[in-house]
Amino acid sequence: MLSRRNPQLNAHGELIHLLSTEGLPREVLAQILDTAGTFLSVNEREVKKVPLLRGKSVFNLFFENSTRTRTTFEIAAKRLSADVINLDIARSSTAKGESLLDTIANLSAMHADMFIVRHGESGAPYLIASHCAPHVHVVNAGDGRHAHPTQGLLDMYAIRHYKGDFSQLTVAIVGDIVHSRVARSDIHALTTLGVPEVRVIGPRTLVPGDLRAMGVRVCHDMAEGVSGADVIIMLRLQNERMSGAMLPSAAEFAKTFGLTPEKLALAKADAIVMHPGPINRGVEIDSSVADGRASVILPQVTFGIAVRMAVMSIIAGNEA
Amino acid sequence: MLSRRNPQLNAHGELIHLLSTEGLPREVLAQILDTAGTFLSVNEREVKKVPLLRGKSVFNLFFENSTRTRTTFEIAAKRLSADVINLDIARSSTAKGESLLDTIANLSAMHADMFIVRHGESGAPYLIASHCAPHVHVVNAGDGRHAHPTQGLLDMYAIRHYKGDFSQLTVAIVGDIVHSRVARSDIHALTTLGVPEVRVIGPRTLVPGDLRAMGVRVCHDMAEGVSGADVIIMLRLQNERMSGAMLPSAAEFAKTFGLTPEKLALAKADAIVMHPGPINRGVEIDSSVADGRASVILPQVTFGIAVRMAVMSIIAGNEA
Amino acid sequence: MLSRRNPQLNAHGELIHLLSTEGLPREVLAQILDTAGTFLSVNEREVKKVPLLRGKSVFNLFFENSTRTRTTFEIAAKRLSADVINLDIARSSTAKGESLLDTIANLSAMHADMFIVRHGESGAPYLIASHCAPHVHVVNAGDGRHAHPTQGLLDMYAIRHYKGDFSQLTVAIVGDIVHSRVARSDIHALTTLGVPEVRVIGPRTLVPGDLRAMGVRVCHDMAEGVSGADVIIMLRLQNERMSGAMLPSAAEFAKTFGLTPEKLALAKADAIVMHPGPINRGVEIDSSVADGRASVILPQVTFGIAVRMAVMSIIAGNEA
Repeated sequence: MLSRRNPQLNAHGELIHLLSTEGLPREVLAQILDTAGTFLSVNEREVKKVPLLRGKSVFNLFFENSTRTRTTFEIAAKRLSADVINLDIARSSTAKGESLLDTIANLSAMHADMFIVRHGESGAPYLIASHCAPHVHVVNAGDGRHAHPTQGLLDMYAIRHYKGDFSQLTVAIVGDIVHSRVARSDIHALTTLGVPEVRVIGPRTLVPGDLRAMGVRVCHDMAEGVSGADVIIMLRLQNERMSGAMLPSAAEFAKTFGLTPEKLALAKADAIVMHPGPINRGVEIDSSVADGRASVILPQVTFGIAVRMAVMSIIAGNEA
Repeated sequence: MLSRRNPQLNAHGELIHLLSTEGLPREVLAQILDTAGTFLSVNEREVKKVPLLRGKSVFNLFFENSTRTRTTFEIAAKRLSADVINLDIARSSTAKGESLLDTIANLSAMHADMFIVRHGESGAPYLIASHCAPHVHVVNAGDGRHAHPTQGLLDMYAIRHYKGDFSQLTVAIVGDIVHSRVARSDIHALTTLGVPEVRVIGPRTLVPGDLRAMGVRVCHDMAEGVSGADVIIMLRLQNERMSGAMLPSAAEFAKTFGLTPEKLALAKADAIVMHPGPINRGVEIDSSVADGRASVILPQVTFGIAVRMAVMSIIAGNEA
Repeated sequence: MLSRRNPQLNAHGELIHLLSTEGLPREVLAQILDTAGTFLSVNEREVKKVPLLRGKSVFNLFFENSTRTRTTFEIAAKRLSADVINLDIARSSTAKGESLLDTIANLSAMHADMFIVRHGESGAPYLIASHCAPHVHVVNAGDGRHAHPTQGLLDMYAIRHYKGDFSQLTVAIVGDIVHSRVARSDIHALTTLGVPEVRVIGPRTLVPGDLRAMGVRVCHDMAEGVSGADVIIMLRLQNERMSGAMLPSAAEFAKTFGLTPEKLALAKADAIVMHPGPINRGVEIDSSVADGRASVILPQVTFGIAVRMAVMSIIAGNEA
C-alpha cells in the first residue's frame, strides 16, 4: 500500500516512484547515485545496453513538450533494453475530452510498466502515481513549478563526482528561484545530503525572503552570493517570465546576475559551474564561462543518462 | 493470388490480411481468439516479449490521427519483437502530392512486412492490400465508417471471456450505429459467431430501419433494447456529428440513451457493459456504470493488445 | 584529427563521416557499393536484422522535415540493431534559442554514436562533423542545394546493378539541375566512377552553362540530351521553385522536358529510367514510363536501404 506521507516509497522504504527529491531519505539518494556510477561505464562501452528492463513497456507521457528531456529518458530506457512508447499527448484522447485518470487507466490496462510524466500542473505525477495500477511505476520528468527530481539527482551526481563529499560545501543557485522546479529539487537534495550552506541568489521578485523556510540563505547581491562558493548552479532565464513590470529585463538581469569570469573569480579557485540547459549564452552565463575550465555543463548531460537509468532500474525492481 | 471475393484469405483459407470481420469464417475468428488467449499470459509475464516477429518491419500508416489505437498496435508489435516505424503521414510525401499507391509501393520496396492502416476513407486498406507486394500484410485499424476489425475482435474476446459461449446471448449495441465502424465490425462478428439476438438501439436518425438487413433487431426505445441483455456495448458519442438539425443534442441523447444504473438494471443480473473508449462520462455512460461491477471496459483494453498480437502473428505466418 | 581537405576520411583514408560524394576516392565508393550488396540479401531474409550496430545510439536530426528520407534511415539503422532516436527538431531546444552547436554538444554528451542530419542550409552537416566529439559519426541526409550523398550512392548502386560497368556509359540527368543536391551528388559520383559522358538537360534558367565546370555536357534540348543514353535520371520538379518570371510553368516544363515514351525511345534500347522520388506523374515523367519496363524507380528504393546500412556500418567501424 502507498504510504500517505511518502508515496514514493513502499512499506520497506524502497523507491517505487520518483516524484520529488523532497522527503527522500539520504540512503535512497545514495543508492541512486551509486547505481548511476555503474551505468556510467555502460554508456562508455561499445555495446551500450544492459537487459535490466527487457520486455518492459515504458511510456513517455509528455503533456508539456520537451524534446530534450524526453530524449534523455528515451535513451536511458533503450539502453536498459525497454520498449519505449512516445505518446503525443497534445494530439491524443485527452484532446478528445478524456480525463487524465482515464488515460492513465487505459495505458495501465495495456500492461504499461512505467510512466515518465512531464506536466504543466504541479502535482500531476502524484495524482497519476496514486491512481495507477500497483505494477506501474511513475517518474516525474518535471511538473509545473514543483519538482524535476532527475535533474536534481544528476546535479547531485555531478557535485559528488567533482567534490567527493557534500559535508563541507557552499552551493550557490542563481536566477529565478521561485519559479524553478530545478532549484526546488536541488535544494531538497542538497539539504538532505548534508550541504551546510545553500545560497539562493537573484532579485527580490524572483528570490523572496520566505524561501528561507527551505533552509537556504537568501542573497540579492551576486558578489556576496558567489563569494567562496564551491558550486555555482546557474538557472535558465525563462524569457517569457521576464515581462512583468516588477521583473528585470533579460539585459538588466544579465548585467546584475549573469555569470561572468569576474564574478566567477569570487568563488573558490576550484569551483564548478553547472546549468540544467539549454543555456542562454550572454544572458545568465557568459560564453567564456560556459565553455571554460570550471564548467561541468556537458558532463551533467552525460551523468543525466546514467542517473535516469539508475532511477528506472531501481524502481522497476521494487514492488508496491 | 488474392481471391476477388475475400481478399483477406489465401487459397488455403488462411488469414493474410485483416480488413473486416465481414466474411471471416467462424474458424478464423476462433483461431484469432484462441491465439489471443495465449498472448494474454505473455502480457502478464516479467518479460513481455516473444520473438515471433523479430526482424520484421511493421509500419503504422495513420492517415487519420489516433494516438490511442496507434499505441495499442505499437505495443503489440514491439511485444512480438518487430521493428515498428511510425509514419507521420499528414506531413509526408502524400502531402507533396504523391498518390496513396505510390507511397505504398515505395514502402513495400523498403521490404516492409506489415502495414497497419487507419484511413478516413472507407475501403482504403482494401486498396492497399490489393496493390501491395505479396509479402506484405495489411491490418485495417479503422477505415471511414466501414470497419474496425481489431476492435470487433477484442469485443468478441471480452464476450467469450465473460460469457463463455455465444449461442445463447442477447447483445445490445447502443448509440450512433449508422456512422460506427465499431458497430459494423461487432455485428458481423457476432452474427458469424452465432449470437441469436443482436439489437441496435438509438434514435431513428442514427439507427435507421434498413440496418435490419444486417440481421439485427432495430430498437428506438432504450428500455426495450437493454431488457434482458447479456451484453451491452455503448458506442462513443461523436459530438462533432451531433450538430445536424435532425439529430439530438448530446444532453438529449444522454437523457434518452445514456446508460444509467436504472437502465442497466433492466438487463440480465450478470450483464456486462462494454465501450470501445475513450468514454464520455455522463454522456453515453454514467460514471457509476463505467466504474461499476458490470463494466469490462478496462479488460477490453488489455484484451485488445493480445488480440492485435494474435492477428499480427497469424497473418505474418501465412503466405499470399 | 580531421583533415581540412577531406573531413570525411581519417588519416588512413577510411570513411568516418558521409558528407558528400565529392572528393570520395573511387575505392571508398566501391567499398560502399560492395558492402550494400551484402546487405541487400539481409533485407530479403526472414529475419532482416544483423547485430552490427547493437547498443549504438543513432539520432535522426531532421531540421528540415522529410518523412520519407527519415524513414529509410530509421529502417536501415534498426536492421543494423541500433537504437534510433527521432528528434523533432522544429519543436526542440533550437526553437528555444539554443545554437546548433550547443544542441550537438549536448547530444554528444549523451554518448550518441551517429547523427543523421537533414538541414536546409548547405554545409550544416560539415559544421556538425567538425565540432562533434571524435566518437560521433555524421551522415548528411541532404543539406540545402549542396549534397544528398546517400541518394547519389544508391543511384550508383542501381546503375552498377543494371549496367555492370561505368566506363562505357552515357548518363543523362534531366530537370532543375542548379537547385538539385541529388544532381550534384550524382555528378560527383559518376565522374569519380569513370562515366565518360554525363549530360545535364533542362532550360537555361535551371541548367546554366557554367555547370560545365563540373565535367558535364550541358544540353537545352531534350531530344539531344537523351539520345543514345544508357541511363536517364529524372529529377523531381519542385513546383514551389517554378514561380519565378524566368522559369517555365510546370505544364510548359512537362511538355518540353517531361519523359514520355517517345522521348525515351531516343535512348538506348536497354536504357534504364531513374528518379529519386516522390514522382510527379504527368509532370517530369509520364505514368507509362514510371511504371514501364525501363523504370528502376522502385528498385532504387530497395537499394537505398542497403546503401544506408552499408554507410552506417562502415563509418561506425572506423575511428577518427
